[in-house]
Amino acid sequence: MTSHGQSNSGNPLMPPVGAIARRTRTARHEDIRLFTEMTGDRNPLHYDEEAAARSRFGGIIVQGGVTSGLLNAVVAEDLPGPGSVFLRVGWNFLAPVRPGDEITAEVEVLEVHESKPVARLRTTIIRSDGTVVLDGDAHVYRAELT
Amino acid sequence: MTSHGQSNSGNPLMPPVGAIARRTRTARHEDIRLFTEMTGDRNPLHYDEEAAARSRFGGIIVQGGVTSGLLNAVVAEDLPGPGSVFLRVGWNFLAPVRPGDEITAEVEVLEVHESKPVARLRTTIIRSDGTVVLDGDAHVYRAELT
Repeated sequence: MTSHGQSNSGNPLMPPVGAIARRTRTARHEDIRLFTEMTGDRNPLHYDEEAAARSRFGGIIVQGGVTSGLLNAVVAEDLPGPGSVFLRVGWNFLAPVRPGDEITAEVEVLEVHESKPVARLRTTIIRSDGTVVLDGDAHVYRAELT
Repeated sequence: MTSHGQSNSGNPLMPPVGAIARRTRTARHEDIRLFTEMTGDRNPLHYDEEAAARSRFGGIIVQGGVTSGLLNAVVAEDLPGPGSVFLRVGWNFLAPVRPGDEITAEVEVLEVHESKPVARLRTTIIRSDGTVVLDGDAHVYRAELT
């Protein structure tokens, strides 16, 4: 991979090192239901208000996959853009996200492979109160779309 | 964490090291739509049949979050069970999953924390043709539900 500051003009599918993109979204109760329909995950932490309130989370939380899904959207829509898929993710889930929380997912290009359309990204999701709810990194591959 | 074979009888929320659970599911076009509704990810690889067919993937694939979501279901429903959330995931996406593919997600308890309801799991997803589509590990925390 190229190091920070080097050009990657030989890799037109990839943005330069240092490029940043972000998306903001409000998590919804409906997202919990969509995730359940997609996966079968019916964890009471996402449905049972009373049990969730008594747990250490203090109330209903959304599935981690709802939160991290906003990074899929940034990568596929914005940076690197359409055709991008994750090859590897290393994500720490640091704090809960509840329905109604506004979250912002940010991606920064850390390294770009010198010949392949592959990059390593810093991936972060922050709640609007400033709490980091997810951090880590990801390797992304971008397929050429013609 | 305890090493393989040790008891964790002091940690009743956690299954023993070596415990295994799995779930099987068939990926659907509908899952692509649900993931998009949940995240905003409208990558052409998931929608544009012709562009996807011309790409290196050779056809429509589901979002990685659809695939990995089956691990959320195993963890929340089966092992360790209700109240479980991921603290950290380190996942390699090794091969594509297409609508119609049957996938099996398997979790094995590798280590259990000696006092906290935290475990490290081996996480694997295999297509019915035997191809490993995801491997890696995850740390899971299990909230007590009362």
